Amino acid sequence: MSEDVGKKMYDLIEELYPICRSITGDGVRQTLDRIGSIVPLEVHEVPTGTQVFDWTVPREWNIEEAFIEDANGDRLIDFRDHSLHVMSYSTPVDAVLEWDELCQHLHTLPEHPDWIPYRTSYYEDNWGFCLAHHDLGRFKAGPFRVVIRSSLKDGSLTYAETVVSGATAREVLFFNHVCHPSLCNDNLSGNVVLAELARRLGEGQPKFTYRFVWAPGTIGSITWLSRNEATLPRIHAGLVSVLLGDAGPFHYKRTRRGTAEIDRVVEFVLEEQPLDAELLDFSPYGYDERQFGSPGIDAPVGRLTRTPNGAYEEYHSSADNLDFVRPEHLAQSLGVLERIVEVLEGNGCYRNTQPKCEPQLGKRGLYGSTGGSQPKQREHAMLWVLSMSDTKHSLLDICTKSGLGFDVVRDAANDLLAAGLLNECADPRHGELKELET
Amino acid sequence: MSEDVGKKMYDLIEELYPICRSITGDGVRQTLDRIGSIVPLEVHEVPTGTQVFDWTVPREWNIEEAFIEDANGDRLIDFRDHSLHVMSYSTPVDAVLEWDELCQHLHTLPEHPDWIPYRTSYYEDNWGFCLAHHDLGRFKAGPFRVVIRSSLKDGSLTYAETVVSGATAREVLFFNHVCHPSLCNDNLSGNVVLAELARRLGEGQPKFTYRFVWAPGTIGSITWLSRNEATLPRIHAGLVSVLLGDAGPFHYKRTRRGTAEIDRVVEFVLEEQPLDAELLDFSPYGYDERQFGSPGIDAPVGRLTRTPNGAYEEYHSSADNLDFVRPEHLAQSLGVLERIVEVLEGNGCYRNTQPKCEPQLGKRGLYGSTGGSQPKQREHAMLWVLSMSDTKHSLLDICTKSGLGFDVVRDAANDLLAAGLLNECADPRHGELKELET
Amino acid sequence: MSEDVGKKMYDLIEELYPICRSITGDGVRQTLDRIGSIVPLEVHEVPTGTQVFDWTVPREWNIEEAFIEDANGDRLIDFRDHSLHVMSYSTPVDAVLEWDELCQHLHTLPEHPDWIPYRTSYYEDNWGFCLAHHDLGRFKAGPFRVVIRSSLKDGSLTYAETVVSGATAREVLFFNHVCHPSLCNDNLSGNVVLAELARRLGEGQPKFTYRFVWAPGTIGSITWLSRNEATLPRIHAGLVSVLLGDAGPFHYKRTRRGTAEIDRVVEFVLEEQPLDAELLDFSPYGYDERQFGSPGIDAPVGRLTRTPNGAYEEYHSSADNLDFVRPEHLAQSLGVLERIVEVLEGNGCYRNTQPKCEPQLGKRGLYGSTGGSQPKQREHAMLWVLSMSDTKHSLLDICTKSGLGFDVVRDAANDLLAAGLLNECADPRHGELKELET
Repeated sequence: MSEDVGKKMYDLIEELYPICRSITGDGVRQTLDRIGSIVPLEVHEVPTGTQVFDWTVPREWNIEEAFIEDANGDRLIDFRDHSLHVMSYSTPVDAVLEWDELCQHLHTLPEHPDWIPYRTSYYEDNWGFCLAHHDLGRFKAGPFRVVIRSSLKDGSLTYAETVVSGATAREVLFFNHVCHPSLCNDNLSGNVVLAELARRLGEGQPKFTYRFVWAPGTIGSITWLSRNEATLPRIHAGLVSVLLGDAGPFHYKRTRRGTAEIDRVVEFVLEEQPLDAELLDFSPYGYDERQFGSPGIDAPVGRLTRTPNGAYEEYHSSADNLDFVRPEHLAQSLGVLERIVEVLEGNGCYRNTQPKCEPQLGKRGLYGSTGGSQPKQREHAMLWVLSMSDTKHSLLDICTKSGLGFDVVRDAANDLLAAGLLNECADPRHGELKELET
Repeated sequence: MSEDVGKKMYDLIEELYPICRSITGDGVRQTLDRIGSIVPLEVHEVPTGTQVFDWTVPREWNIEEAFIEDANGDRLIDFRDHSLHVMSYSTPVDAVLEWDELCQHLHTLPEHPDWIPYRTSYYEDNWGFCLAHHDLGRFKAGPFRVVIRSSLKDGSLTYAETVVSGATAREVLFFNHVCHPSLCNDNLSGNVVLAELARRLGEGQPKFTYRFVWAPGTIGSITWLSRNEATLPRIHAGLVSVLLGDAGPFHYKRTRRGTAEIDRVVEFVLEEQPLDAELLDFSPYGYDERQFGSPGIDAPVGRLTRTPNGAYEEYHSSADNLDFVRPEHLAQSLGVLERIVEVLEGNGCYRNTQPKCEPQLGKRGLYGSTGGSQPKQREHAMLWVLSMSDTKHSLLDICTKSGLGFDVVRDAANDLLAAGLLNECADPRHGELKELET
Repeated sequence: MSEDVGKKMYDLIEELYPICRSITGDGVRQTLDRIGSIVPLEVHEVPTGTQVFDWTVPREWNIEEAFIEDANGDRLIDFRDHSLHVMSYSTPVDAVLEWDELCQHLHTLPEHPDWIPYRTSYYEDNWGFCLAHHDLGRFKAGPFRVVIRSSLKDGSLTYAETVVSGATAREVLFFNHVCHPSLCNDNLSGNVVLAELARRLGEGQPKFTYRFVWAPGTIGSITWLSRNEATLPRIHAGLVSVLLGDAGPFHYKRTRRGTAEIDRVVEFVLEEQPLDAELLDFSPYGYDERQFGSPGIDAPVGRLTRTPNGAYEEYHSSADNLDFVRPEHLAQSLGVLERIVEVLEGNGCYRNTQPKCEPQLGKRGLYGSTGGSQPKQREHAMLWVLSMSDTKHSLLDICTKSGLGFDVVRDAANDLLAAGLLNECADPRHGELKELET
């Protein structure tokens, strides 16, 4: 089954791969349209010129065609072959240029002569072509005709959300970017894994309310935050999650706070997996987590990737293609995210109703009756939950302190709840949220 | 002399060894009677049916005889041979049984075929025999006659205390259990070492008041705590101390708080000994320290043993016998407890009366007069005590920070007190106790 | 140039070396007079008998000549050869003594038979001669004539200050002792390096006010503190700095608080140097830092030396001479002190004026416009400064967290200040100082 879901997500990447996305434009709309066939999406259009904190929503960019021809009329580079061939947000051009001038608009990766780089110029008018370094050899007889039929016009920035309502208004946020053209790991892997996670959560009755956002990077998260400041106090935990299809180990980048619930939960889940994983402290460079971690926002949103941005050779090049991501990695990433959700949902905080000495578990049928030998793991878990349920410790704290697994501790707490030996109480770290709910 | 005291304690163990103790009954009374010949004991009887927190004092159990005979009338197992042969709290039985039924009531240790296990069934009516696994071979021609002449009647739970009054009402508590039948390390070693410690303290003029309690495990500490809640705020430090006669290294299990005065003192004393020792964090499984560390009690009571419960093969079997404990280990354990008392008594907290710059020690005859060479350890200790006596640090803090030994620091403080350069003040960690004393 | 300044400081040591300094007297005055030719000094005279905290300013000591002659009238020891030959504060004597009596007044170092030890007896009337152990061989035919023409009279204790006024009244204090006779590293090296540092600071426009004090050890710092209690709340950072001319690694001894601004700055500067360095916790033995770190003073004053007092063989002996200190070590020590000043001056604390999400650096010309590739170190530094400028972190905190160097972070902050993206604010650790300034 996990192979099936991996294949299903991979097929969707294959379908979305050719589309030329950018931070605005029809490529984003097409992509969201297709994701909307998996989970119901609310699509938002934010007009060009809208002020979003220190930024302004830019003009909308679209592109029809682009190519370079040599003096013989042979096409040397054609946008139809690969959406990376044109620098994103290139202004329109139709000109005949000599090599000396043209070459200032060509971007290559000499260290990887077969790969096309990914380049953008969102906030400064410019145009450019990206190509494999070894294709420079084709540029012989100039002058060259250069055509980019693009448009930069007032329009809008597009993002989409889906919300799975839970028993409480406290929210768990999953955020990912949707602005990269034909690049598979960055960002299609995140786009499809989060879509599948949202679909699955929609089939259940979660405790928390789950919000998923697909938006362009940087300007998209800034736009979303500027329109959702009222939502921030309700965020119990959040993840920016992308780069989920490669073979690399998981990397979790902590929230600005460093000790938020999401930090504790992801660190715990990665540690219980039979996988290598690395923990990174917050830093102000990376993906959209840096907006959530800006000093005036400071939301409890971490970032989960496999190999991080910039840490693999294929990053931001045409080598981040359909061969670079695999169905089994997508399925494994989905599994880790589902386990994170499971632990977030299960991690309660309790008060022992019989806190003076141990309650007598035996008379409630919760403890073996023949003494003298060692208690079982379940009995150990009950003793730990009773001992630490003083309103100051969560079940995850109890796991960490006792060395016991989450499931046995969660089951023990359920038994004790059923026996009236525990009351649920608010996690002291989320006192402010408790008030919101009343 | 230390050999003498070891021999004296060992002889007492030998005397108490055959008695069949349990959580109630005459075996406990005989044991306390004998300990009462060493230190004056106040014996408490708590009636069956008394509610003690979540528990109820059970019926009192006594036993006259018990045996199993084969079809020929040959005795296969006889309680007179070893008090472990009968499962503690066995209900009375007089029946003739076939092997299939009998064997469900027999307990052995296949991995140690020569040893008799120790089993109890305090809170569920049941009966059983415990025997060496290799003695199963004697069970040939059935049916078998099974007799246990025991009684389970309304009576009382018995525990005893001795109190050595000190200059202050703040108390140091030593607690140990007295419910195990013929087992030497667990618990006779603790019973006799604490009796000797109490006797010795009674000969002096201690600063603190010392309370020693001998009580059955679990139900005994729960009963004591339910009747002594008013005593708890006066407890300055406490130790559950048992398993003191084997050759293993000392193990100190911290209080629930983890940083109480007793934690600091025992860790310091074990570190200054020329012995290996291990420090364990609090956990809710073990001996009576888990009742003192329950969330609604949270008393500063740690646990000192040599090899901990369950960590040696002979634990809870007939191999925990007179060969397993040695006079020299008992004497060494007593020595460590006496050093703990010495450091607890000596660990004051002071205020430097001349805190601006160093006071001139030379004019008070406290410092060598020829300068230029290095000061001596005693002079170093005076400088450290003056430097850190800002009401926030105890002498033990000063030892830890300076690396100096307790005795030189204690002597330096005494000299400075005599010179008027220090005032005694309450340890900030025990502010609440200060008020109690006024 | 650094060689020139090293030579200049070394030459001054050479000039001051022969003078017989003590905790009072004309030797100190001559020394301060010469230092006063480099920086303007305010010289203070505190009369004998003045009460300074627990101490009293002693009588003033001066010495004209001293010698020992044998029965033949041959001079065996002559103070004119070396100022260390007479124990400091020796009372006057003119007597003829047999060897048995004389030898009780002779001090040697048997483990270094060529070296003269340094001895003092400030607070107990006594006299003595110090000499190379191998010179004891000269003492043949007694009796011996012993002459010390010294005086102990009411006079005064002398110390000197220079103040370089800065933009704020918050002070940085440099303190050093000036009481040692012919010893080069201890204390002439500190005397001349601090004089040069003060001279250089006087040529600039510093942010902080810098105060330099030259005073006798112990009684001098106690006297200064007793007369300058009102200055203490203004001290932003301070250093006792001596032992700056040997080849050993730098040793920084932390303030009593352990985490003061000066602790952070010196630790950072020593770490960025291509040198080994050691950090020591505060202890109440050493130089005058122990008075600043006494519990009633608790000023943020650390101590910077190369090899610490007592940790080199030549310490407090005639081997601490003109060969033991080198121009290049003096210059290097000056360089480290200047870097400490630079970081102290530059280490501001700021508030990001656009704290919600990242401000758009590109539109302000602060960020490269072509996206997709990695940002430069300067851009990283700007992101870190913006991220951590939440009024709770200084630039040094940002360096430590980001791993970036101080200069690139300081430059980034300056760019952001110029762009209006930062406001300066008080370091939260110095809140009390802010009020003083208004």
